[in-house]
Amino acid sequence: MDFFNVVTVQEALERIYEKFEGYELGYEECQLSQALGRVLYEDIIAMEDVPGFDRSTVDGYAIKSSDSHGSSDFMPSFLELAGSVRMGESTDLSIKSGQAAYVPTGGMLPEGADCVAMIEYVQKVGESMLTLHRPAAPLENVIRKGDDIQNGQNVLKRGKTLRPQEIGVLAALGKPSVKLFKKPRIYIISTGDEVVDAKGPVLQGQIRDINGYALEALAVESGCIVSGRALVRDSLEELRAELDRALEISDIVLISGGSSVGERDYTEKAMNSYEGEGTFIHGIAIKPGKPTIVGKARGKAVFGLPGHPVSAMIVFNAIVKKLIKRMSESEAAENFITAIMDMNVHSSPGRTTYQMVRLHEADGEIFASPEFGKSGMISLLSRADGYVEIPDYLRRH
Amino acid sequence: MDFFNVVTVQEALERIYEKFEGYELGYEECQLSQALGRVLYEDIIAMEDVPGFDRSTVDGYAIKSSDSHGSSDFMPSFLELAGSVRMGESTDLSIKSGQAAYVPTGGMLPEGADCVAMIEYVQKVGESMLTLHRPAAPLENVIRKGDDIQNGQNVLKRGKTLRPQEIGVLAALGKPSVKLFKKPRIYIISTGDEVVDAKGPVLQGQIRDINGYALEALAVESGCIVSGRALVRDSLEELRAELDRALEISDIVLISGGSSVGERDYTEKAMNSYEGEGTFIHGIAIKPGKPTIVGKARGKAVFGLPGHPVSAMIVFNAIVKKLIKRMSESEAAENFITAIMDMNVHSSPGRTTYQMVRLHEADGEIFASPEFGKSGMISLLSRADGYVEIPDYLRRH
Repeated sequence: MDFFNVVTVQEALERIYEKFEGYELGYEECQLSQALGRVLYEDIIAMEDVPGFDRSTVDGYAIKSSDSHGSSDFMPSFLELAGSVRMGESTDLSIKSGQAAYVPTGGMLPEGADCVAMIEYVQKVGESMLTLHRPAAPLENVIRKGDDIQNGQNVLKRGKTLRPQEIGVLAALGKPSVKLFKKPRIYIISTGDEVVDAKGPVLQGQIRDINGYALEALAVESGCIVSGRALVRDSLEELRAELDRALEISDIVLISGGSSVGERDYTEKAMNSYEGEGTFIHGIAIKPGKPTIVGKARGKAVFGLPGHPVSAMIVFNAIVKKLIKRMSESEAAENFITAIMDMNVHSSPGRTTYQMVRLHEADGEIFASPEFGKSGMISLLSRADGYVEIPDYLRRH
Repeated sequence: MDFFNVVTVQEALERIYEKFEGYELGYEECQLSQALGRVLYEDIIAMEDVPGFDRSTVDGYAIKSSDSHGSSDFMPSFLELAGSVRMGESTDLSIKSGQAAYVPTGGMLPEGADCVAMIEYVQKVGESMLTLHRPAAPLENVIRKGDDIQNGQNVLKRGKTLRPQEIGVLAALGKPSVKLFKKPRIYIISTGDEVVDAKGPVLQGQIRDINGYALEALAVESGCIVSGRALVRDSLEELRAELDRALEISDIVLISGGSSVGERDYTEKAMNSYEGEGTFIHGIAIKPGKPTIVGKARGKAVFGLPGHPVSAMIVFNAIVKKLIKRMSESEAAENFITAIMDMNVHSSPGRTTYQMVRLHEADGEIFASPEFGKSGMISLLSRADGYVEIPDYLRRH
């Protein structure tokens, strides 16, 4: 890896976006119950008003507001009870001046009425007469037709990640299914003669495959489908054969491992063994995670991630995840928190540095304490609540 | 609903926790690949050291650090090459003073060596002689046995929600499966004569069932299984029959709807029709969401949520979700962000108020703007990035 080929995180992202510009994940039609956390493929245009009629927000009496003006406990207005609106049904009632109709919460406002007087301020006098003890303003206690969503409105946009409230909006609009971006398919290959699966025993000199499981979890968390997972020894033939299988059924392939020079060579050679693009990033100015290579093979994105679990996971978050979101045009924001670093930490010269931190609260402020540990320590990540990204240049805070 | 029976959010939570103290969700054994986002039922005790041997973090030469002292380009140390460590294998090599052995990144440190000199600072001189041009300190470029995780250490605690990094830790420890709290089973019942399913047509006076879908999404997001969903008309018999079915197969039942007085009565009557506890909370000082009732039937938690989608969702987050977490002893933190309100907003007197806000950035600061809308507007929630909780008393900021 040539030091002079190392690019910044921003440059890396720009090159990657450019190479996969227009990559089509395609869409699938999904039931609303399965759509949580997925990304909309289509703009959602309301085909109706929500609500579809003027609705009362209280139990009360629909009236003409002008009939209530000046009414008080000392001078109540007298109104004739013209009928009742039944819940969930349309009403033929029409309110004229001097009349009122009972409406339950959520019930339809009858024609002629422009507000609802709360039941608390009305007294029944005999069978069909009411006294009203407070004035009501026009539209008081009423949600009008289309107040929530208007017919023709572009309510949700392509690229929107669906939270429970968007699921609610789609239900309100009567969309039992929606077009969603297909989940990106990620194939995860761990390499290394020393790596064995977590399920088996571990001999002296061997370590368990952490990256396979951790990257799988990150991929799922990022909204992907894991199309396959494999553990490959340090052999160009084996790696090439696995990559063949992976490219067939995936949008993105992650090859992790290869921290020693020989191993890195295999990864790069395998990525360059296809006609066309091959590798186009050879090292990223990121700490941890510098020995990251990125290429294009058979039109798919292939990442050569560092073998150290912490580095692999950081590069996933800083680089791979961004491509995943880009592919589905998702603008979902990252979760972040504002905290005060309780110790000075600086970036490695020339490298965007990711410092693990732990959060704690004191005097109503949130503080972040750096968690230090040697490269590759998985327990370090688990102890941390998150990380701080320190840019590779000085920035005023 | 008697105003004097209304309890604060904190009181409501305390009563609910007390009523369901010791409720047993039970556990299930799960494959590591399926464990993301789930809650650990067991403490995880390391049964081995990670790594299981002293490991090199670089490509280089394992030496005794004392042999390197004082070495420089002008005065290199001369060392005899005693052999090579092969990746993924144990080594019988033993390093004596004056000797060195090649070790790849991740390779096992041979006996006798206490550090690794990076390949960059070593030159080969003939077949079996090296010159070393820099001193190396003890333990330099070495991760020691147990440095990451120590045998016997309680690495993860019961109640921990598993993020990708914890999945990595479990893989490192060779745990292909773990005991997890069973997902709480939630049954969601929407009530109301005016409510129709999102799939069907909507007539004048009717509205679509938003709560069923939105609460389902919230439940799934909170780590639950939705054991069933139903739409019930305003009838005590129908509601009672549905509640019977729900209690059979669920840990928590949500009944939403019932904003009008009559509807609320049905919900409360149905909840109180079982022997034993019945309702124990009749209104919560929360805005929106005051007309919330909570009860216990057949040992299960039953919530009567407001019919307005926004209110129902807020009460879910403020109350129901807390019980869900409590049941699995989860201490996972809520996502929050520190922002500056760009407008003064105060709580409703005596009620914890949830104000929807939208976030925006200006001059490097994050600001929150309140999003206003009438009660029950689902589009309001969708426009918002989140909400601010305003306590029901004055608090200094």
